[in-house]
Amino acid sequence: MPFRRRVTKTGTPEILFLTLSPRNLKMIVTYDGSAFNGFQIQPDVPTVQAELERTAGLIFGTASRVVGSGRTDTGVHALGQVAMVKTVCPIPVDKLRLAMNARLPESIRVRSIEEVSSEFHARFSAKSKQYRYLIRPVKEVSPFLVRFCHQIVEPLDIEKMREGAARFVGVHDFSAFTRSPVRVEEPRRHILKSEIEVLEGTIVFDVIGTGFLYNMVRNMTKALLLIGLGKMEPNEIEELYRNQDRTRLGAPAPPGGLYLMKVMY
Amino acid sequence: MPFRRRVTKTGTPEILFLTLSPRNLKMIVTYDGSAFNGFQIQPDVPTVQAELERTAGLIFGTASRVVGSGRTDTGVHALGQVAMVKTVCPIPVDKLRLAMNARLPESIRVRSIEEVSSEFHARFSAKSKQYRYLIRPVKEVSPFLVRFCHQIVEPLDIEKMREGAARFVGVHDFSAFTRSPVRVEEPRRHILKSEIEVLEGTIVFDVIGTGFLYNMVRNMTKALLLIGLGKMEPNEIEELYRNQDRTRLGAPAPPGGLYLMKVMY
Repeated sequence: MPFRRRVTKTGTPEILFLTLSPRNLKMIVTYDGSAFNGFQIQPDVPTVQAELERTAGLIFGTASRVVGSGRTDTGVHALGQVAMVKTVCPIPVDKLRLAMNARLPESIRVRSIEEVSSEFHARFSAKSKQYRYLIRPVKEVSPFLVRFCHQIVEPLDIEKMREGAARFVGVHDFSAFTRSPVRVEEPRRHILKSEIEVLEGTIVFDVIGTGFLYNMVRNMTKALLLIGLGKMEPNEIEELYRNQDRTRLGAPAPPGGLYLMKVMY
Repeated sequence: MPFRRRVTKTGTPEILFLTLSPRNLKMIVTYDGSAFNGFQIQPDVPTVQAELERTAGLIFGTASRVVGSGRTDTGVHALGQVAMVKTVCPIPVDKLRLAMNARLPESIRVRSIEEVSSEFHARFSAKSKQYRYLIRPVKEVSPFLVRFCHQIVEPLDIEKMREGAARFVGVHDFSAFTRSPVRVEEPRRHILKSEIEVLEGTIVFDVIGTGFLYNMVRNMTKALLLIGLGKMEPNEIEELYRNQDRTRLGAPAPPGGLYLMKVMY
């Protein structure tokens, strides 16, 4: 916005900016979720949103609302969370990114900031999201990887897991894959991609969907783990779509293996 | 101790073991120090020693004292911490190791257990210790490495750091390299090895000494960082031995880069 930048350079008093329409800024944010009680602000505990709002407030000199594409749970990481903030502050986006990173805890990094149209909304404009879950077959658990992947000492049948993953693609009733205490109005979700590959000894489960129920990816992963361990057959997934049995999967896969990779608009 | 094992197999009542002299067990322990408030037990906070004692207590069925080779600070990691425990319990060491790891948090792992003579003491028998500090030159800080290495965006002169590291070898007065509030009786320590090498893009500072003052390795590392950044000359290290100036180095290098690698007996 060259106009606003020119205004700053001439030293126009700050009050004038308040009459300008605010810029809408889209940030791509990476964080180590194990350092926070999830993305969404809650009283008395560290959250990613609270840190982003605190930092934006420091830089803009005014209380700033930061809106994410959605919440992530305690311990869940993000490589490509999207958050937006509106501001009349004319700082160029590259400088703003450096200023944010200088004031944020090192466990949160702003990877990029771009100015977007005022119609853009981090949550409501999102078309789909990509999540990744990391499973590492190991002989012995490494204490240094506990927060970052799910380490498994039992042998896993990766081919069966692949077969299971393929069955998630399409529109299905995922009631059996959520632990939400209330039944949601619409339990069907559209999965566009669901694949397993092995990268450097780690089993990588990639899933893209237009939306996800609460805990859904961790429960999908749990189903794949049960399949890999021989405790469930791949075709039981279709059964779960039908019978909506929320007890079959037990506890979801632990949060530390899960990464929000990308939000598509 | 074949005698005791034979006793178990015949099903001799447990009370008989109490009359046997206890076995002295030496454990090598790995932990992610960022999950604990240091090694040493303190009230109301998680510590490695407390977890080891709790777990040993569960398995042996009796309050068990676990003694480490020394403390490590909050956030400092260990690959080869040594801890000892005395017990009359006849479980073979391999089974005991599995039993410990099954009950310990995953952020602590017992790598090995061996039976040692009753004269062995984890702390007082130690002849020397090896520490390693990891410094990673990066363009941008990764939030996922914050707890595990010290990430530096400024350029570092590694050759000068090497020169600095070499000056630590020998017997020196390390008063300037400790932040202990009280002056210690004997501030001299004997450093046997002090070297910098670069492994996969990470600057690895390895130091072996017969003993270390409080925060000493983190302050030695801080001196090397100042040298690498051009804020101190390698020969200033000898000056610090002489002038014992505790203010020159400022805050020690952060704890997350430091690993207790090995205790030599």
